[in-house]
Amino acid sequence: MTTTDYIGIAAGICTSVSLLPQLIKLIKEKNARDLSIIYLVVLLVGLALWVWYGVRQEDIPIIVTNTVAVLLNVAILVVGIRYKQQQ
Amino acid sequence: MTTTDYIGIAAGICTSVSLLPQLIKLIKEKNARDLSIIYLVVLLVGLALWVWYGVRQEDIPIIVTNTVAVLLNVAILVVGIRYKQQQ
Repeated sequence: MTTTDYIGIAAGICTSVSLLPQLIKLIKEKNARDLSIIYLVVLLVGLALWVWYGVRQEDIPIIVTNTVAVLLNVAILVVGIRYKQQQ
Repeated sequence: MTTTDYIGIAAGICTSVSLLPQLIKLIKEKNARDLSIIYLVVLLVGLALWVWYGVRQEDIPIIVTNTVAVLLNVAILVVGIRYKQQQ
């Protein structure tokens, strides 16, 4: 692994981890009132495009970290839509 | 520009645009109660690292879109901290 790989992985960890507070808040408060589904879908499309971009560039840090971010974002969407339906 | 460049730019537009609702909500409601400064700082560090990564990889889509995201995030931080101090 090169220094550049490490920078990419650190970058991806920070931008993925920053999705966690939203998921934790959602599960704690069981309330999706403030959640914007459109925002989440736009973010999901963007993250999926980054994965596709990473595959085409054969860029492992981009693929790995954005896949994690996609999974976190899908979790937020699934939990958020379920809570919204209950309201 | 290659197809890969277009995918990267589309990816970056989506992930940057997804920061906008938070800035708009903040300015509209003039309330930073729900804003997590730690989350914003982690995200800012991540975005800045992506810019650094893009520079090392000479990857224009990554540099351009993450620079826009850094600026949006700094705006959210500046407005957010100002509102927090007023509360």
